[in-house]
Amino acid sequence: MKSRAAVAWEAGKPLSIEQVDVEGPKAGEVLVRIVATGVCHTDAYTLSGADPEGAFPAILGHEGGGIVEEVGPGVTSVKPGDHVIPLYTPECGECEYCRSGKTNLCQKIRITQGKGLMPDGTSRFSINGKTILHYMGTSTFSEYTVLPEISLAKINPAAPLDKVCLLGCGITTGIGAVLNTAKVTPGSTVAVFGMGGIGLSVVQGAVMAKASRILCVDINPSKWEMAKALGATDFVNPKDYPDTPIQQVIVDMTNGGVDYSFECIGNVNVMRSALECCHKGWGESTIIGVAGAGQEISTRPFQLVTGRVWRGSAFGGVKGRSQLPGYVERYLKGEIKIDEMITEVMPLQDINRAFDLMHEGKVIRSVIKY
Amino acid sequence: MKSRAAVAWEAGKPLSIEQVDVEGPKAGEVLVRIVATGVCHTDAYTLSGADPEGAFPAILGHEGGGIVEEVGPGVTSVKPGDHVIPLYTPECGECEYCRSGKTNLCQKIRITQGKGLMPDGTSRFSINGKTILHYMGTSTFSEYTVLPEISLAKINPAAPLDKVCLLGCGITTGIGAVLNTAKVTPGSTVAVFGMGGIGLSVVQGAVMAKASRILCVDINPSKWEMAKALGATDFVNPKDYPDTPIQQVIVDMTNGGVDYSFECIGNVNVMRSALECCHKGWGESTIIGVAGAGQEISTRPFQLVTGRVWRGSAFGGVKGRSQLPGYVERYLKGEIKIDEMITEVMPLQDINRAFDLMHEGKVIRSVIKY
Repeated sequence: MKSRAAVAWEAGKPLSIEQVDVEGPKAGEVLVRIVATGVCHTDAYTLSGADPEGAFPAILGHEGGGIVEEVGPGVTSVKPGDHVIPLYTPECGECEYCRSGKTNLCQKIRITQGKGLMPDGTSRFSINGKTILHYMGTSTFSEYTVLPEISLAKINPAAPLDKVCLLGCGITTGIGAVLNTAKVTPGSTVAVFGMGGIGLSVVQGAVMAKASRILCVDINPSKWEMAKALGATDFVNPKDYPDTPIQQVIVDMTNGGVDYSFECIGNVNVMRSALECCHKGWGESTIIGVAGAGQEISTRPFQLVTGRVWRGSAFGGVKGRSQLPGYVERYLKGEIKIDEMITEVMPLQDINRAFDLMHEGKVIRSVIKY
Repeated sequence: MKSRAAVAWEAGKPLSIEQVDVEGPKAGEVLVRIVATGVCHTDAYTLSGADPEGAFPAILGHEGGGIVEEVGPGVTSVKPGDHVIPLYTPECGECEYCRSGKTNLCQKIRITQGKGLMPDGTSRFSINGKTILHYMGTSTFSEYTVLPEISLAKINPAAPLDKVCLLGCGITTGIGAVLNTAKVTPGSTVAVFGMGGIGLSVVQGAVMAKASRILCVDINPSKWEMAKALGATDFVNPKDYPDTPIQQVIVDMTNGGVDYSFECIGNVNVMRSALECCHKGWGESTIIGVAGAGQEISTRPFQLVTGRVWRGSAFGGVKGRSQLPGYVERYLKGEIKIDEMITEVMPLQDINRAFDLMHEGKVIRSVIKY
């Protein structure tokens, strides 16, 4: 079948709106009609060419909401008409990782997914016979996309797909990092570095965890209004302290440091600040941002020996098939805010503008509606 | 009063056996007669001059066992004749850290202790009127030493002080890092880097935690015999793998990495290996070793984002006054092995030989008996 899609022909070039050929689902696969998709920094990172694993041509996009159109042989957990959120972190329930009870990082299809291919090692996308690669196992920048059954979370059909699509990445990542990874406790102090979609979602998560104080750190003061509306209590602009490391500023503001910190940018220097602003004895820092290829984090080991903990989080530690439907329910109950995070809505043909707005820091999230 | 002591007059010089003047205990202080003391790498580190906080002249030593000789005004928790272990990490029970329930790093007397002084800002040691500094709040290289009451753990008098003195640092640090800090679970795989007194104690702790596999990593194969006797299951010599990073060797040996690792050397490169040999998704690495001044640890943040956790441990996370007496009981029941770790016993006047043997890697622990 034919599908409208935004194709990334090569790194560093704008996306190109094309009619692509989509092959039907094979065994264990599902054809999904994407209703809406967010545009995330990770898409831009890969498109820029900085992602060493980025392969082209490909159809990017990983923050979608859609409806099952057709299922391949052997698919039993979803059927045509079901509302689904694509998962770039699948949940097979069978691999060592899924069975460990300690991680959401299902490894069942990691190798093929990393190559832009379906689990059988082939692609379902092509144009004039030329293969177009999948991306993150999701490729939500195509109206019709094919995914493994294990990469779909079936959700409540009452939820608006043009909103809950954002639970496919950013919002879940931020909230989950607070609730699942760091397990922030009531009354805690929290510092959040970077007020993009992830950072604002960390603020939401910290409010849900009943943190007593939520410090937002960003060099763009225009981000403060939204953070405050979501429940942040303090705003810290590193530019206001040109002579003091920001970790020292926060330690001084919080009687020795925060209980929990989160890095939501992908800057290795900020990751260090986030660790070192934590309280001696018990402060825990969680890295969420994705750093550039080959970059490294550093600190003095004394920071850890004196009780700080350094960890990281991917997709908020959330197991997509079993836990994401619950996030959708919390949105429907008003416990998770999504609508406020959507600052632009546009059709697929304007998708390059969504990237421009993101680079200019003028949006939290743009949503593409097909 | 007069006391025999080994005085460190300056960095880089051997200790000098002297008669020192010891002032009696002031309010909240206790005079202790040290019966035996271990000689630890941290003493050597400070004596070498590499410790940026090292101050001279001082009486080193922090791994002792003794008997209370006299108490100062207001002291209620110990009385003359009580058997005690000096604590370089005190436990006041009142400070924010003690009350947090999250750390053993009592901060009550940190500043004065760091300066080599008693909490009132003065020293109890002198020679011909010249002040000699305390060290780590313990100074167990003096037969008579004065400590704050909060720096003493009262223990079962049935325990031989020339054995349980080693619970004042190394053995507790290693076992506690496994049980308190990492909280190793039954059936886990464990890698231990460095088979000195701490590393061997980590092996003991891993056995107590019912680890299924305990890999010892050391470039000196002569360490293997003792590690095996304590319960280690595998020995890995990095020199046998000149072309492969040791973390990769361990990942290959353990189906993806170990569940827990411990760095017991103080080498920042080994700290990285210890983190990176941990299993994706859940492996946790604990730094115990003390690195040289200004040295830093590094890794790619991807290591943490994919589920590894980096933490550290000081004195095994053990609260000295409330938990160390229990370690002594476990020694008396045969659950903790100490006797096997003592390879040399000597009188105070031979203490420089204990340092030489340590530098030559020929002993696990030397014990000085007064």
